[in-house]
Amino acid sequence: MSGRVFLIGAGPGDPELMTMRAIRMLREADVVVYDRLVSADILAMSPERALMIPVGKAPKCHTVPQERINDILLEQARAGHRVARLKGGDPMIFGRGSEEAAYLAAHGIAVEYAPGITAAQGASCSTGVPLTHRGLATSVQYVTGHRQADKVLDLDWKRLADPDSTLVVYMGVANIGQIAMGLMTENLPGSTPVLAVGRATTPEERRLVSRLDRVAADVREAKLTAPTLFIIGKVVSLYAEAPLAELVEQVEAHG
Amino acid sequence: MSGRVFLIGAGPGDPELMTMRAIRMLREADVVVYDRLVSADILAMSPERALMIPVGKAPKCHTVPQERINDILLEQARAGHRVARLKGGDPMIFGRGSEEAAYLAAHGIAVEYAPGITAAQGASCSTGVPLTHRGLATSVQYVTGHRQADKVLDLDWKRLADPDSTLVVYMGVANIGQIAMGLMTENLPGSTPVLAVGRATTPEERRLVSRLDRVAADVREAKLTAPTLFIIGKVVSLYAEAPLAELVEQVEAHG
Ligand SMILES: C[S@@+](CC[C@H](N)C(=O)[O-])C[C@H]1O[C@@H](n2cnc3c(N)ncnc32)[C@H](O)[C@@H]1O
Ligand SMILES: C[S@@+](CC[C@H](N)C(=O)[O-])C[C@H]1O[C@@H](n2cnc3c(N)ncnc32)[C@H](O)[C@@H]1O
Repeated sequence: MSGRVFLIGAGPGDPELMTMRAIRMLREADVVVYDRLVSADILAMSPERALMIPVGKAPKCHTVPQERINDILLEQARAGHRVARLKGGDPMIFGRGSEEAAYLAAHGIAVEYAPGITAAQGASCSTGVPLTHRGLATSVQYVTGHRQADKVLDLDWKRLADPDSTLVVYMGVANIGQIAMGLMTENLPGSTPVLAVGRATTPEERRLVSRLDRVAADVREAKLTAPTLFIIGKVVSLYAEAPLAELVEQVEAHG
Repeated sequence: MSGRVFLIGAGPGDPELMTMRAIRMLREADVVVYDRLVSADILAMSPERALMIPVGKAPKCHTVPQERINDILLEQARAGHRVARLKGGDPMIFGRGSEEAAYLAAHGIAVEYAPGITAAQGASCSTGVPLTHRGLATSVQYVTGHRQADKVLDLDWKRLADPDSTLVVYMGVANIGQIAMGLMTENLPGSTPVLAVGRATTPEERRLVSRLDRVAADVREAKLTAPTLFIIGKVVSLYAEAPLAELVEQVEAHG
């Protein structure tokens, strides 16, 4: 009996946002290999018999290198196990899921996928701020604000500074000042509204409404930390609980 | 007892790709207001007691105008019902969900959201082609290829023609020739791979692998129709079942 790997999107945090397929695959697993961002409530849905292998990466502290993760998946599948590889959000978006899939496929291991609600979608539905909206944004773009160690953040500001599009910045807490500056240099107004959402859809969800020319200071003051994402663009003006006049409003969802 | 509206993302087609929350909200509904793209298998999960109201739009044949849909939702909620508003994919992306939500909120009706797997994510997971991938795409953008009646397609080709990003074109079947031309004019190579996926994640899923300089002809020849989306960019080179040498390969998933 040869093993296989289920590449599963666990969604943004709230277990209820998992798809039925994700849950089915998780329930079928003999081994669960999971990232740090996957919540305890979701891990608790794993079968009792399953071997649990954490491979989570904290920022600046890569506990398990990607090559080792690839090998763990391969070893476990070769041992004949059904391996659930659980990732936050969707495995095909900023998740390195496709690198793992390519490695496994090259070694003859079958991979099956369960998509997941992205962090951006989770933040959108929990705040009521859409990602596209007639007259405000005709497209939406997901970018990463993370840079490799010792490299400069190499984003094409001209392309990103589009007043008619929604920009979602992943992994951007550390560099949000540089990102805001780059966008303003390419003529995105400093008054462009920004919604930062930390731990979206979890009991620790935090929201901060700001604008491009102030967001770096506001994030620092509010001590927002990863995982946080930024929704930048006119759609944020639809955020009902924080009219733009009130510049910074933090909603501590629970407590 | 005042009514409420659940704005539910039904996902790309396969009922197993619905979230648990979407299913819970659907099961609680007294009234189900649904779009044409929502599959029969998903509608079949509605409670037996529920009043079913189709408001689906076929391209060029807007059966129920948006204003009328808004009013139906408002009337049903005011009558005290729990109304499930079912949309394909995610309600916050090209779904006009936020227009309905804004209308309802302005009339004092509470809206709750269930995000859904987008058509792009469905196509990605069913074909194994990721939306981002190290070295191939550091960002992903969703745009609409649909234009208003009697208007020219007004897209910012310079911004979209990014060789290091994945471009997903929604509602683009009718205009894919014009879209490909616009991207090539801004120096995206004619050899850029394109994956067209029709009815992703359903038993009628169709795939077509092409390239920018041929995709319009290939789509015409293959008679691909809506709902179809296009994944454009280097990530398509990871599509395992169709190496780029074979220019057009259609996989009829079932039969
Ligand atoms: C490696 S990426 C994973 C993205 C994921 N695959 C997705 O589809 O959303 C990790 C980043 O996602 C964002 N993120 C993940 N979960 C989040 C959450 N619950 N709330 C806010 N941001 C989140 C943060 O920007 C975080 O640094
Ligand atoms: C009004 S938009 C709805 C988008 C949806 N809200 C989402 O999040 O994916 C309709 C378009 O979505 C795309 N689409 C929806 N379902 C699809 C499917 N199963 N396969 C391919 N494309 C699909 C097509 O481009 C279609 O014209």
